[in-house]
Amino acid sequence: MSSPCPYKQPEHKLTMIPGPIEFSDPVLYAMSTPSQAHTSPEFIKTFQTTLQNLRKLFKSTDSKAQPYVLAGSGTLGWDVVGANLINPGDKVLVLSTGFFSDSFAECLKVYDANVDVITAEVGNVLPLDKIAEKLKSEKYTAITITHVDTSTAVVSDIKAISDVVKKESPETLIVVDGVCSVGVENLEFDAWGIDFALTASQKAIGVPAGLSIFYASERAVTKALDRKKDSSFFASMKKWTPIMKAYEGGSGAYFATPAVQTITALKVSLDEILGESLDARFAKHEEISTQFKNHLAKSGLKILPINEKVAAHGLSAVYFPEGINGADFLAKVAGKGFTIAGGIHKALVGKYFRVGHMGFSVYEGHVDKLAKAIDEALAEVGYKKQ
Amino acid sequence: MSSPCPYKQPEHKLTMIPGPIEFSDPVLYAMSTPSQAHTSPEFIKTFQTTLQNLRKLFKSTDSKAQPYVLAGSGTLGWDVVGANLINPGDKVLVLSTGFFSDSFAECLKVYDANVDVITAEVGNVLPLDKIAEKLKSEKYTAITITHVDTSTAVVSDIKAISDVVKKESPETLIVVDGVCSVGVENLEFDAWGIDFALTASQKAIGVPAGLSIFYASERAVTKALDRKKDSSFFASMKKWTPIMKAYEGGSGAYFATPAVQTITALKVSLDEILGESLDARFAKHEEISTQFKNHLAKSGLKILPINEKVAAHGLSAVYFPEGINGADFLAKVAGKGFTIAGGIHKALVGKYFRVGHMGFSVYEGHVDKLAKAIDEALAEVGYKKQ
Repeated sequence: MSSPCPYKQPEHKLTMIPGPIEFSDPVLYAMSTPSQAHTSPEFIKTFQTTLQNLRKLFKSTDSKAQPYVLAGSGTLGWDVVGANLINPGDKVLVLSTGFFSDSFAECLKVYDANVDVITAEVGNVLPLDKIAEKLKSEKYTAITITHVDTSTAVVSDIKAISDVVKKESPETLIVVDGVCSVGVENLEFDAWGIDFALTASQKAIGVPAGLSIFYASERAVTKALDRKKDSSFFASMKKWTPIMKAYEGGSGAYFATPAVQTITALKVSLDEILGESLDARFAKHEEISTQFKNHLAKSGLKILPINEKVAAHGLSAVYFPEGINGADFLAKVAGKGFTIAGGIHKALVGKYFRVGHMGFSVYEGHVDKLAKAIDEALAEVGYKKQ
Repeated sequence: MSSPCPYKQPEHKLTMIPGPIEFSDPVLYAMSTPSQAHTSPEFIKTFQTTLQNLRKLFKSTDSKAQPYVLAGSGTLGWDVVGANLINPGDKVLVLSTGFFSDSFAECLKVYDANVDVITAEVGNVLPLDKIAEKLKSEKYTAITITHVDTSTAVVSDIKAISDVVKKESPETLIVVDGVCSVGVENLEFDAWGIDFALTASQKAIGVPAGLSIFYASERAVTKALDRKKDSSFFASMKKWTPIMKAYEGGSGAYFATPAVQTITALKVSLDEILGESLDARFAKHEEISTQFKNHLAKSGLKILPINEKVAAHGLSAVYFPEGINGADFLAKVAGKGFTIAGGIHKALVGKYFRVGHMGFSVYEGHVDKLAKAIDEALAEVGYKKQ
């Protein structure tokens, strides 16, 4: 997966949470690239390639669609939606599959969106007929779908939902929170008619945290550029669109200083990711995810998603077995050299844990090693399979 | 200045623009720190030390004042001011010493501030009596001062302006854009009664771009926390204040994923900066800046600031001599291994260039080498001292 690299990262506790994930040596080495001016020929070339490759990552060939990379985090992408695509009072339909969907709704309310949230049963996705019914009942400016909610490890069927939107309300903008999906779950931006997809660097894209990455359709860009009243300065697509176009076209431009080193690392990671076909990458993640989940099931553990069909492939959310102390278990796993995460869904805090299996760790055999460590840790806290 | 470091950056063109600046080997090495969870004990310790040391950088001991570090850039700090300290319709007095002051005003208007801009003559600061007069004529919620405007290399006297505000309008919040000043010009947050100071990582703080860093007084924090209607989600001090307090107190918390590697680099850089006294650091920058400016004067060049008293110490803005081609000159300098910057003040684009002399380059002798390269480049483009 990696090209020859003079840097080898030291042995360390493996970070196997649903992001930040583990990074390859070449990606980490790129983080220490000596200083370059943000408008230097060297960095312009780097940013140009990065933007071109982001189009491939989103499976998009529409030259009127637009990739963006800002210093920030996934959360900033929500502000971009609220500040550019939603006018005060606009109706927005939020499909909630967990904590992050709800937070997205909260963000949109800050921008005076009139938000309707429909909430799936915990561990499940929303039934398509319920979505269709809402779209028939009201005119929504936008619908937001959390592709993979990192709190529940549930994956929504973007294509199927998009088909419903196209049928019932084609003028509704389709907004996808792809924070835990882009780079691990299939997402066909053009073919599925998506208008806006946002993600962050530290998930399946395999780059240290610090970048907000998003991709907008022609009609989303047009809407943002035609907007009368700006609602944010730093998150303004009006400000950033010419900057991104300049860099992709091979010249520098300035609105706010880009994160030169982290973007250089993004360039390296995209080169790695696109070194195989995206579909091969998705298949690999599905294979490792299925193996891991099967292993957990064999050990007697139960995943949070109600079935395999709605279970994401970049992470697993897993109930602690009855009778064991979750914190003790996580500490035992940490003692074996792996950081995994507690649960954050409000209804289930303390009842489950989460494991990220994306990118580098999937290719380096970390997931198998973690599965073994989990079994050992369970035994050490007194768990016996029923 | 640096502790033993296994990484040595390769030879490269030296970036001597007014940010990003050159970075030390340990800072760059920290950028490639292997993945850590944002709530891991390792990163919590790093962030805790960073926040504690930011207090020292701002010369602040008031425990009710609050440091913040967000993934973003200096520009994001302007949104933080607009979204947290200004209510729609509030009067704000912007003291303009160049391009960046004007952009700050533009940002505040997005948040519906009622902005009065008073503009200094190009290359000069604003007379104190003019500021006093404005403050007497109207009630301003806030005054913004660009400590060093990176477009003109002019440094404002924050203490003197603050004294005027305290006398004429003590309830007016004093907001300092310290993007090109914090870490190179003296700034005494508590003693001078500042309410909000913002900066970015890639200037005198000596860390790759990607962080928005700001510091708020007790009354600024209180105002932000008491705010009725939020105007931003990602830039909300209500959201970030508890997160920063948690990390500084030694526990993890989550609102949006912090830029783990860049914050680790910030920790290393602050350790380096605070390894000598801040006053010694400021004196060193003043000494090197004066030497460089004297050298330019001896070569017959004229700086943009109208005199030495208003000239900043972290950068120099210098007129191209009559009759030479500026672009050719910059290309010649680049050919000798130094990136310096063109001018960006609207009235003077193409008429001057800018050199950054901050941090690592000041301590490593880069400024002397650049001075020599500038002389050679001038000769090569046919310049002869009059």
